Amino acid sequence: MFPKEIYIDRRNHLRKAIHKGIILILGNKECPMNYKANQYPFRQDSNFLYYFGIDEPDLAGIIDIEENTETIYGNDPDLEDIIWMGYQESMKEKCHKSGITGSRPWNDLKSDIDKAVGRNRMIYYLPPYRDDRRMQLSFLLGSDYDKTYARASQELIKEIAAQRSCKKEVEISEMEKTMNEVTKAFYVEAMHQIKPGRYEYEITGLIEGFTLERNCRMAYPIICSVNGHILHNHYHGNQMQSGDLLLIDAGAESPLHYATDLTRTFPVSGKYTDLQKDIYGIVLQAEVESIKAIKPGIRYLDIHLYASRIICQGLRDLGFMKGNVDNAVQAGAHALFFPHGLGHMIGLDVHDMEDLGEEFVGYDDDVKRINQFGTGYLRLGKKLKEGYTLTVEPGIYFIPALIEKWMSEKLHSTFIDYEKVKKNISFGGIRIEDNVLVTKAGHKIIGTPVPKTISEIENIMKR
Amino acid sequence: MFPKEIYIDRRNHLRKAIHKGIILILGNKECPMNYKANQYPFRQDSNFLYYFGIDEPDLAGIIDIEENTETIYGNDPDLEDIIWMGYQESMKEKCHKSGITGSRPWNDLKSDIDKAVGRNRMIYYLPPYRDDRRMQLSFLLGSDYDKTYARASQELIKEIAAQRSCKKEVEISEMEKTMNEVTKAFYVEAMHQIKPGRYEYEITGLIEGFTLERNCRMAYPIICSVNGHILHNHYHGNQMQSGDLLLIDAGAESPLHYATDLTRTFPVSGKYTDLQKDIYGIVLQAEVESIKAIKPGIRYLDIHLYASRIICQGLRDLGFMKGNVDNAVQAGAHALFFPHGLGHMIGLDVHDMEDLGEEFVGYDDDVKRINQFGTGYLRLGKKLKEGYTLTVEPGIYFIPALIEKWMSEKLHSTFIDYEKVKKNISFGGIRIEDNVLVTKAGHKIIGTPVPKTISEIENIMKR
Repeated sequence: MFPKEIYIDRRNHLRKAIHKGIILILGNKECPMNYKANQYPFRQDSNFLYYFGIDEPDLAGIIDIEENTETIYGNDPDLEDIIWMGYQESMKEKCHKSGITGSRPWNDLKSDIDKAVGRNRMIYYLPPYRDDRRMQLSFLLGSDYDKTYARASQELIKEIAAQRSCKKEVEISEMEKTMNEVTKAFYVEAMHQIKPGRYEYEITGLIEGFTLERNCRMAYPIICSVNGHILHNHYHGNQMQSGDLLLIDAGAESPLHYATDLTRTFPVSGKYTDLQKDIYGIVLQAEVESIKAIKPGIRYLDIHLYASRIICQGLRDLGFMKGNVDNAVQAGAHALFFPHGLGHMIGLDVHDMEDLGEEFVGYDDDVKRINQFGTGYLRLGKKLKEGYTLTVEPGIYFIPALIEKWMSEKLHSTFIDYEKVKKNISFGGIRIEDNVLVTKAGHKIIGTPVPKTISEIENIMKR
Repeated sequence: MFPKEIYIDRRNHLRKAIHKGIILILGNKECPMNYKANQYPFRQDSNFLYYFGIDEPDLAGIIDIEENTETIYGNDPDLEDIIWMGYQESMKEKCHKSGITGSRPWNDLKSDIDKAVGRNRMIYYLPPYRDDRRMQLSFLLGSDYDKTYARASQELIKEIAAQRSCKKEVEISEMEKTMNEVTKAFYVEAMHQIKPGRYEYEITGLIEGFTLERNCRMAYPIICSVNGHILHNHYHGNQMQSGDLLLIDAGAESPLHYATDLTRTFPVSGKYTDLQKDIYGIVLQAEVESIKAIKPGIRYLDIHLYASRIICQGLRDLGFMKGNVDNAVQAGAHALFFPHGLGHMIGLDVHDMEDLGEEFVGYDDDVKRINQFGTGYLRLGKKLKEGYTLTVEPGIYFIPALIEKWMSEKLHSTFIDYEKVKKNISFGGIRIEDNVLVTKAGHKIIGTPVPKTISEIENIMKR
């Protein structure tokens, strides 16, 4: 945990922003795999971690603004627990680390909420993202299960999103340290191990093992694939062949659960082909130029469109696209090759605060989501502020099913040379991603640079 | 998946055993970690795997006995799925691999069940072990959430437990292969890496990475601890010191989800101390002798008690216990040092079929659970049959909180020399575990032997 002052400050900030009512923040329960006692590694709720810091199951926090009290609900260990699980901190000790004096048994949570509701107090809570959280909320609030999600407090969501978006120094150091000591390090290690004949799962295992050996875990399931154009891809059974690209999108999560999120695309043989070099060059340019454009006050939507124009221009130079670049991007033609957003916030979640709803985290009254294929998937569009941490991750993909669909519909055929695209339909995909902090002066890449130019990568992979 | 004939045979067997009605077996859903789209690695329900084999989320199987139909409910991939996730098998193709011709969209499941209930057909289902499964059953059957667990079908539970208990050749080979190529191999690798000054998580990471690199995963969270006496222990933050014992309890799960479950206890320095040797020798004797006693027809409860007497005798020889061994074990005095059961079934679950309820899996009308501290935790008590696969895992632990509790109550003080025990209260714990197949002739350890004698281990760890 951070020092308790951090959590006290965070709660004070939230309390001032919300003014009145009762804020309820549920911790997470354990998740069974194939029977109740065989559980996945515990992952605490990120909002509970942010305001209370205690990384254990079966807890809930209440901040009562008018009464000026803060209470954590949970049960003390009993003798049985100590016999089977060794020394266990009492609730009082746990709460002390979080700067909280009031703790109550778990079963009091329901009756305390009932009392508050009886006195017409307003209970603010966040939208549930697990079925068990939804069940719990429905039980605690005596509300209909189906309405629990919709009745979450938008006021609370917005205040938490605003607060968690601007990272403090302790949070940035946590991400930097993890990037340098774990994520960067396993990329360098992986580059030495990628070889024709080996399987994707060998590299995946190397990355996850490397991370666990350093007391971290993965922030999200690893993408490690010779089919980089398959964007939702957690299959690792392919054998790598010379000529393939291997796209790795992986990031360690720090012991305090701050995420890193990095992507590189390597040539399995150690050397990129000419076409791979050409396309890689475009993606790299889009990535580097997008990072350069980052500064407080700029809309991330505009940087996304800027990256889209660079990609469009590059593909036009290679003959895959044609016509006017600005018009092509405005029409959305680039999205055949770059069908996702440029990036998202990152912090205690890899898609930071995605549980709160993208509309509240990535957009606001000024900047609304553009409802167009490709750009519509952009998770962060609004104006950047100092302290934001985000990903920059442009890519170019040749997705056979998408190409065939558009081609059959003759979609954007003034901007796309389908004959040339079709000849290269099995190209695959390239993505390059870094994590960036928005600073007063502009921006800073989080962590020391991870090799990303063609010559840097080919040099390390030389054998 | 296994060849489809395996699944067809299994379903035919079950159908004959149940005679009538409709059997509903739910597959699992994805489990979110910190937001809906960031999910734990998918784990299919073991009963669904056993009868249908398809390792994907959002499926359910129905076996209608009178109508002689088998149906899998689930949705076909749409174009969006294929664009983002690459080529996807149709429901028809998936079902074909399972030997099933009938597939229906997911939403038909509820209406088909409603129709069957309307015709007074009996729906047999298994007890839910995840909240989302319970919710699903409650919705599908239109039954009260709280009563869903209790209304599961005992008849179905008993038939499935009987069938899954006796492993076939294909299942045993799967476990053997995983034991030899992964579990045994990572133990040997770990033995070379255990050194004073290193951290438990370094060894844990090595084991999990080694497993993932071989396209397997862990069957259960790794125990890797210098505090072997803490039985429920997933903390890996301790630094290993010379003189410590490191207890490792870890097993890989095969790609088809068969578990292995092995324990060894190593000296961090590479050499056991004299007392460690003495206690290790007792545990090893209990393990080896218990395995020798395994054969069809013997009650596993009796082998547990036999192991308990060996432990008691050994501790008596060392002066930790006293008095008559048989009487001490009958009174339960040995459970101060050996407070858990000798073992459990193993198969598609590490505690095989624990979701069905231990009373149905480990006991029967002949052998009832003994309600005594220690032996009461024995998961498997009933008579062994050819084809059972099980763990043998005796241990000796010095658990400070338990010792202090018993001492203050003067519990079993005719059998325990508390003065001597107290002097060694920080000894820690030792457990040794293998997986064993019950054969016609007696028994067979699953996989080639993993080093377990003092000299074998010290020899490998020599540096």
